[in-house]
Amino acid sequence: MEKLFVIKIGGNVIDNEQNLQSFLKDFAAVSAKKILIHGGGKIATKIGQQLGIEPNYINGRRITDAATIDLVTMVYGGLVNKKIVAALQSLQCNAIGVTGADGNIIPAVKRPVKEVDFGFVGDIKADAINVKNLGVLLTHDFTLVVAPLTHDGAGQVLNTNADTIASALAVALSSEYDVRLVYCFEKAGVLEDVADEQSVIPLITIEKYKQLKEASKLFEGILPKIDNAFDAINQGVKEVLIGDARDLLQNVTAVTKGTLIQ
Amino acid sequence: MEKLFVIKIGGNVIDNEQNLQSFLKDFAAVSAKKILIHGGGKIATKIGQQLGIEPNYINGRRITDAATIDLVTMVYGGLVNKKIVAALQSLQCNAIGVTGADGNIIPAVKRPVKEVDFGFVGDIKADAINVKNLGVLLTHDFTLVVAPLTHDGAGQVLNTNADTIASALAVALSSEYDVRLVYCFEKAGVLEDVADEQSVIPLITIEKYKQLKEASKLFEGILPKIDNAFDAINQGVKEVLIGDARDLLQNVTAVTKGTLIQ
Repeated sequence: MEKLFVIKIGGNVIDNEQNLQSFLKDFAAVSAKKILIHGGGKIATKIGQQLGIEPNYINGRRITDAATIDLVTMVYGGLVNKKIVAALQSLQCNAIGVTGADGNIIPAVKRPVKEVDFGFVGDIKADAINVKNLGVLLTHDFTLVVAPLTHDGAGQVLNTNADTIASALAVALSSEYDVRLVYCFEKAGVLEDVADEQSVIPLITIEKYKQLKEASKLFEGILPKIDNAFDAINQGVKEVLIGDARDLLQNVTAVTKGTLIQ
Repeated sequence: MEKLFVIKIGGNVIDNEQNLQSFLKDFAAVSAKKILIHGGGKIATKIGQQLGIEPNYINGRRITDAATIDLVTMVYGGLVNKKIVAALQSLQCNAIGVTGADGNIIPAVKRPVKEVDFGFVGDIKADAINVKNLGVLLTHDFTLVVAPLTHDGAGQVLNTNADTIASALAVALSSEYDVRLVYCFEKAGVLEDVADEQSVIPLITIEKYKQLKEASKLFEGILPKIDNAFDAINQGVKEVLIGDARDLLQNVTAVTKGTLIQ
């Protein structure tokens, strides 16, 4: 199968213009098929404050009310997404910016209200991801730039976590492509010793992961990321690469930096 | 050649939620290939005011400064575009929302500074419109929803008049499709007597137009629209339909209402 990179960038890339331009240059240079998923939370918070939309939390969980879904639709789907698309086009990368509503790529359901009403948050209908429409775009050499928005199929745009979108797209496209899922974050990779930035573990297999957990050395915050990586692998994704965007993209095919999870 | 409708809606449709939903229902029901171009000016002005971005005019002409291009990128490319896409998807219309930067569909140049610096306004490079990428999307039954934004190919999003985009897309796609360009506006069509809303002229040919101009009956404001229509026809567009969105779409194939320009 053909190789496909599904690459997620977060705030440490998006929120710094220089980091973003540098990342996009490396991203554009990846010759394989590729999908970019971006967040944009800090920009949304900043513009929201200017609009008098204060972040709304219940029990420590952020709520997407009606004003907030309009805000993130503007900021994620418009401002951040189109700036990335225009920048990639200037780098001869044939980018097309989408949300999960475009081409019905990522259908979702509004999260059911239990203890907390999260508002306009979408839980992805994994089985309904539109592999056909994604395939048409990828086959014709469009590079998808995906904003973290989905829709309910009844006309409502929904807010969905970018990590979750990346993982869901990677899994869904594993039937057609040899997918490497890449999570760019603020560390150089998974650290064997959280106090030592040089202790990046180059390869984590499920056996290695058991040993690491038994030794209790890993930073607790990284465990969900690794668990998610193995979930994706168990559902068909070939491998997951975790590390610093500045390192990863320059060698994304060879993998000389970061942590590879297989 | 296959029929293609290129349909432009303005403020009188966009700014009224009920008009918009009603229009989109009719639009989704058009079974032929179709492209929708939307504006969104009043919503941008309203959100801009909330953000402290006051409309900036020089010699009566609106200027797109740095804050304004970010504003319209958010509002046109994000909020308005994605709401329309989600609504169309709910109506089983396979909409995909784009700007001129996406897929490099509409390359433009930043308008040269002469007496007035218009700021981040794009003049379309008509010969560079990406008919190949547009064709891929249309061939695979995507319905394009186009926000009035272009790009300079060097990473800058630009603000471009929606009427101009509609006309440029219609002309460029005339090499591949039998294009009917449809301008939805606030009147039922071109009126023979501007004081009489019932005096819609059903058909205007170039001969008829000459007679009408000689009789000096037409409302002066409509003359540039008709001139633009004949410009488009002279460049390959099959026909131009002008009228009220509520009438036009229900009969867009048969043309029983509005003014047809041929």
